[in-house]
Amino acid sequence: MSAKLIDAAAGVLIGVGLGPGDPELVTVKAARILSEATVIAYYAKAGRESHARRIGARYFPRDCEEMLLAYPMTTERPFDHPDYIAALSRFYEESAERIARVLRAGRNVALICEGDPLLYGSFMHIFVRLRAAFRVEICAGVSGMSGCFAAAQLPMTWGDDVLTVIPATLPEAALIGRLRACDAATVMKLGGNLPKLRRALSATNMLERAIYVERGTMAEQKIMPLREKTDDAAPYFSMALIPGDGRRP
Amino acid sequence: MSAKLIDAAAGVLIGVGLGPGDPELVTVKAARILSEATVIAYYAKAGRESHARRIGARYFPRDCEEMLLAYPMTTERPFDHPDYIAALSRFYEESAERIARVLRAGRNVALICEGDPLLYGSFMHIFVRLRAAFRVEICAGVSGMSGCFAAAQLPMTWGDDVLTVIPATLPEAALIGRLRACDAATVMKLGGNLPKLRRALSATNMLERAIYVERGTMAEQKIMPLREKTDDAAPYFSMALIPGDGRRP
Repeated sequence: MSAKLIDAAAGVLIGVGLGPGDPELVTVKAARILSEATVIAYYAKAGRESHARRIGARYFPRDCEEMLLAYPMTTERPFDHPDYIAALSRFYEESAERIARVLRAGRNVALICEGDPLLYGSFMHIFVRLRAAFRVEICAGVSGMSGCFAAAQLPMTWGDDVLTVIPATLPEAALIGRLRACDAATVMKLGGNLPKLRRALSATNMLERAIYVERGTMAEQKIMPLREKTDDAAPYFSMALIPGDGRRP
Repeated sequence: MSAKLIDAAAGVLIGVGLGPGDPELVTVKAARILSEATVIAYYAKAGRESHARRIGARYFPRDCEEMLLAYPMTTERPFDHPDYIAALSRFYEESAERIARVLRAGRNVALICEGDPLLYGSFMHIFVRLRAAFRVEICAGVSGMSGCFAAAQLPMTWGDDVLTVIPATLPEAALIGRLRACDAATVMKLGGNLPKLRRALSATNMLERAIYVERGTMAEQKIMPLREKTDDAAPYFSMALIPGDGRRP
């Protein structure tokens, strides 16, 4: 970082977190950045609508240029499969180069993403590839979990409570270990991991305390005690919340 | 919660998170709620400016009524001292009753707070006292830690990284145990706990990785590697960030 060779004539990469889903939970700053943007980039799964675009589109200027970064088709390939990792790595390299070309032409690029851009954020993969060569600004967003706390009206941490944020993609034994040690927890990225999480919550006697939140703050949100959810279908944008019960006056 | 006896003619308690400090990091929704508010309540330490008011004031309508909830003088009393807990408990009871009187008169009250209202939020103490009797809406905000991640331009969690959010108020042995088990961590509420945290980070060989962020996103923010901070003065609005280093393509 100390050896940065920044091209001062180049544009600025602006990472913009757009919050948990409700377009009104975009920050005033993010709305202003979008309204001033000339190039707006976003990810989408191949053939699907971009979640970030859906949140932010109302703030796009009429004449802005949009850059779609379409994820390679990797459905149902395990996260840790070498082919998946290689395909994603190529995709991020190519996406970073596409953005770099625009920056070198002296134009700014706003790369938008859901939630908080630095918490499991897709923005980070471009950021680490370009930060040595270009100026970067990052606009914080409401995290997906903060959106879910509010949607479920669930006080999460009191006093000395420790909050553990756990990806449900972890192996079952690791989930159990993390849950056993936690005061309060947010389990992210449920998707196909819901049956495994349910077993881990049962093993730690925490199933009764868990609240299931699907697409929190979006029009189609669903919120229920996890024990009342009888099916195993959970989108990627769902999480389980286990509120803390610490000291409170 | 199933036995709610809500007075439908009463006003709505609206908990509004105003984000980490930069007034531009208020959400579009929070700005809209404030612009429509007739009564806006906020906490402040006795004789001090309210942090939440400082963030939100630019969005207040000219003719709104402001309700100051002034914390009792409890400086330098330990967190777990019975006198401190009793004084705070009385204060929250009285504050809830003041707000309830306005709600019973059919007027809404927007209770504003810094950061995320449900993550160690002062809003929660009023919420749990009034939620059985009044309608409540909660507007998520950018958490203090999300603001600090962006201010420090620090990718915090990759892939399967677990993020642990730790109050620095914990005893030193507990801090060490939590840090030893973490992939990535945010240590909140530094204040007078900085020397203890520094010892815990040294004991777990994590001092080199820790970034100190003071008043992140505010005009007077300070960001530096924690090892380069030579004094022990840290405000309550400071935290230490330990970024994760998980799987990434």
